[in-house]
Amino acid sequence: MPASPYIQLEQEWRRLHAFHGALALLRWDAAVMMPRGSADVRGEQLAALETEHHALLTAPRITRLLDRAQANAQGLEDWQLANLREMRRQRDHAIAIPVSLISRLARTTARAEVAWTEAKRQDNFGLFVPHLEEVLHLVRDKAALLGQALGLPPYYALTDEFSPGVSPADIDTIFKALARRLPGLIREALALQAQRALPALSGKFSLGKQRALVVQVMRAIGFPFDRGRLDESEHPFTEGVPGDIRVTTRFDEGDLLSGLFGAMHESGHAMYDLGLPQAWRDQPVGRDRGMALEESQALLLEMIIGRSRAFAQYLKPLLEQHFGVTGPEWEPESLYRRFIRVRRSLIRVDADELTYPLHILLRHDLEKKLLSGELSVRDLPEAWNVGMEQRLEVRPTGAADGCLQDIHWALGSFGYFPAYALGAVIAAQLWERLRGDIPELEQQIGRGEFSGLFDWLRERVHSLGAKVTVKELMKHATGQPLSASASLRYLEAKYLEEPS
Amino acid sequence: MPASPYIQLEQEWRRLHAFHGALALLRWDAAVMMPRGSADVRGEQLAALETEHHALLTAPRITRLLDRAQANAQGLEDWQLANLREMRRQRDHAIAIPVSLISRLARTTARAEVAWTEAKRQDNFGLFVPHLEEVLHLVRDKAALLGQALGLPPYYALTDEFSPGVSPADIDTIFKALARRLPGLIREALALQAQRALPALSGKFSLGKQRALVVQVMRAIGFPFDRGRLDESEHPFTEGVPGDIRVTTRFDEGDLLSGLFGAMHESGHAMYDLGLPQAWRDQPVGRDRGMALEESQALLLEMIIGRSRAFAQYLKPLLEQHFGVTGPEWEPESLYRRFIRVRRSLIRVDADELTYPLHILLRHDLEKKLLSGELSVRDLPEAWNVGMEQRLEVRPTGAADGCLQDIHWALGSFGYFPAYALGAVIAAQLWERLRGDIPELEQQIGRGEFSGLFDWLRERVHSLGAKVTVKELMKHATGQPLSASASLRYLEAKYLEEPS
Repeated sequence: MPASPYIQLEQEWRRLHAFHGALALLRWDAAVMMPRGSADVRGEQLAALETEHHALLTAPRITRLLDRAQANAQGLEDWQLANLREMRRQRDHAIAIPVSLISRLARTTARAEVAWTEAKRQDNFGLFVPHLEEVLHLVRDKAALLGQALGLPPYYALTDEFSPGVSPADIDTIFKALARRLPGLIREALALQAQRALPALSGKFSLGKQRALVVQVMRAIGFPFDRGRLDESEHPFTEGVPGDIRVTTRFDEGDLLSGLFGAMHESGHAMYDLGLPQAWRDQPVGRDRGMALEESQALLLEMIIGRSRAFAQYLKPLLEQHFGVTGPEWEPESLYRRFIRVRRSLIRVDADELTYPLHILLRHDLEKKLLSGELSVRDLPEAWNVGMEQRLEVRPTGAADGCLQDIHWALGSFGYFPAYALGAVIAAQLWERLRGDIPELEQQIGRGEFSGLFDWLRERVHSLGAKVTVKELMKHATGQPLSASASLRYLEAKYLEEPS
Repeated sequence: MPASPYIQLEQEWRRLHAFHGALALLRWDAAVMMPRGSADVRGEQLAALETEHHALLTAPRITRLLDRAQANAQGLEDWQLANLREMRRQRDHAIAIPVSLISRLARTTARAEVAWTEAKRQDNFGLFVPHLEEVLHLVRDKAALLGQALGLPPYYALTDEFSPGVSPADIDTIFKALARRLPGLIREALALQAQRALPALSGKFSLGKQRALVVQVMRAIGFPFDRGRLDESEHPFTEGVPGDIRVTTRFDEGDLLSGLFGAMHESGHAMYDLGLPQAWRDQPVGRDRGMALEESQALLLEMIIGRSRAFAQYLKPLLEQHFGVTGPEWEPESLYRRFIRVRRSLIRVDADELTYPLHILLRHDLEKKLLSGELSVRDLPEAWNVGMEQRLEVRPTGAADGCLQDIHWALGSFGYFPAYALGAVIAAQLWERLRGDIPELEQQIGRGEFSGLFDWLRERVHSLGAKVTVKELMKHATGQPLSASASLRYLEAKYLEEPS
């Protein structure tokens, strides 16, 4: 008897998963190991494997099997039904965009990336204008086609890829709550911060010792170095598949903390990926639940746990052990004050936890207007600068520290930015429930014990894979609907604490 | 107008080449970077990509296009005709073996490798017997099928993969000449060697400094570090494609020379691959001309050039610069005497240039008898030991330093061994002509100038890719037919030099 259509689909996806893992390794290597001059060769390899992956995913055979499996879905378990839904979702996304548009997007964004780099270097937005216009034109086509196929409005069709099941209305509700409270909260926090002097942390910290510290912390967190690696790259990232997960960070001799927190962020991603359901590891339902949830796991570890008093307590003896540093500026309370320092920055990637969401709100607002045509590319720099003044009371000096700072739009990534701020909101909501469920959690972290934390996260979040939507997952994990409330409570408690 | 069948074939092979490069990177990473526990995940990725590669290569469309292109071959250039022939050859090799036999071989050799490791560790050949019998059974089937498809006798069909166009009769003629002369030559060389005392080279040599020395030598040779890497692995190897070529070596703190000569060997492979015709780099005709020629380029650099007086002269000041070593044992003549030290070894990979071919002759003799059934697996250890005594006057103490020392047969690699000795023969024949054509070659090498060498090799050898057979290539490059004569002249001159 031949295998059932559903079982045949699982076999097809096993193969797709192997391609997915091979592509991840090719990208990891390109960022970490590859010689500079080999980019053209690697580009051909990635294109060939991606084309083949796309062809396998959109083959008529897959459509036939999906139809037959759905017509015979009785007897399938919950997990299998969810898997079937995710298979269909992947296939719908892949088939909605014609190959000709995919390759035009690839060529156009490759040129736009070069132009963006040069425009940013020269601080000359004009160089980028025709490229962004062309990218925008193609992204509009993509959004329209995706929207048609998925039955969603165009911008929703784009955000759905990164934050599945969170509607633009949900995003607007959450972002409005943040926009209402954050500017005032920042002003109050800065006023309180001005009352406390903070001694400078100077010195040179050898990269080898920084690495040893980071490895020790990652081991404590539970990162499995027998099935994963830590390396260095220009921008920290996480790549690979559970079973071979690779994180990177970037060390700075003059800044002890940036390499550590970079590694904490990526370890958050890695621990999520490692906690995904092992039995479904090569199936769509065994994948992460999208970028917003990925980001929540990274920010929970980097920002909420990493930048806490408990973590400062854990870290203090490690810093003494690795660098021989002592003195008042190395006491836990001083470290903690440094961790949560607030500063109105022009640059998103340098922003702290409190100001960061406003950087995202600006981009979200502008990218919707660019897509709808309400804002023209030529008018983007002024709209950006006005938006920064309104939201963060700082004005960029040019386009390089303004609307040219991020690469996303050059690459055609519209609808991605909201996932960053949603991630912070999700992280805070999980954290509130975590503290309620595990009263001794902060003492555990102060002792460098992370198993209580990850047992909870695995049970409530990681082990669900992509079985439920983000909103269902949050209801399941926290008992509350997804909202900005916990996030604002968390930020107020942390940043409005009166000096003792 | 649609592209011609030939042009369509070039497009198909461009895609196959990208798969080939991706597979090379997955293998490189597995040996150099991959965490230990990730082997299962990598195995699935390799299997999926190899299966897909095989499916693309054996698709009916390829056969149709090959037939149509061959029927319309008028107007094709020499290179294109050679490319068509190599395409057909790849496809014939791939299609000759049914997928069921390929996967049985993969499963059987995977188990045999585990059994071989354990049998070698315990020095217990009995553990390996049933596995080698099963592998042999499947390899016989493979050889018969390949032979039918290619119109060759079974063993020829196997050697043809590694030494294309060199017939078993050619191999026999060459190996007989070596077998006749080498045992006596070894005896004479050892007698001469005994007349010269050689001071011991003791000391510890930091791995970082050894690496710096090797990088400097590789730069002098012309290895392009902007399109290639040097790393460390348990066994040195070369992987990748021209444009991203990766060599490894293995450093030993107590042995300054092993890491250097390992890197020289692999750099020989790399320089060959880098010299292949750039215009055909993603086509079959742009590939190397098989393992025997690959090995010739590695041995030419490692053994003939690396272990020469001229290279010792070049190396002396570098050793002083990197390690601060001086004294009589570091003078070029002492270094050279050490480079060419002869020793009757039980282990192939430890053997010197003079005794090495006899290790191969033994394996070649035994694998033919195993395949024909003339020798049973049970009788292999005794046949091995007798063969070692006859050829090298040493007798293994057990199977671990006897017939279990190499992994090749466990992996089903029969017909591969001859390529090692053929490589040495080819290298010596090229060297004889090189010295005739470039009288100042050794002075150049003494100064660390390798461009004269590689200009010649690129013009006469590398740039031909797979356009002609090995025998045609040797005729073209040296004016002489392939034979053992130059090799024996070279070894006699080098190893029978009277003490001055």
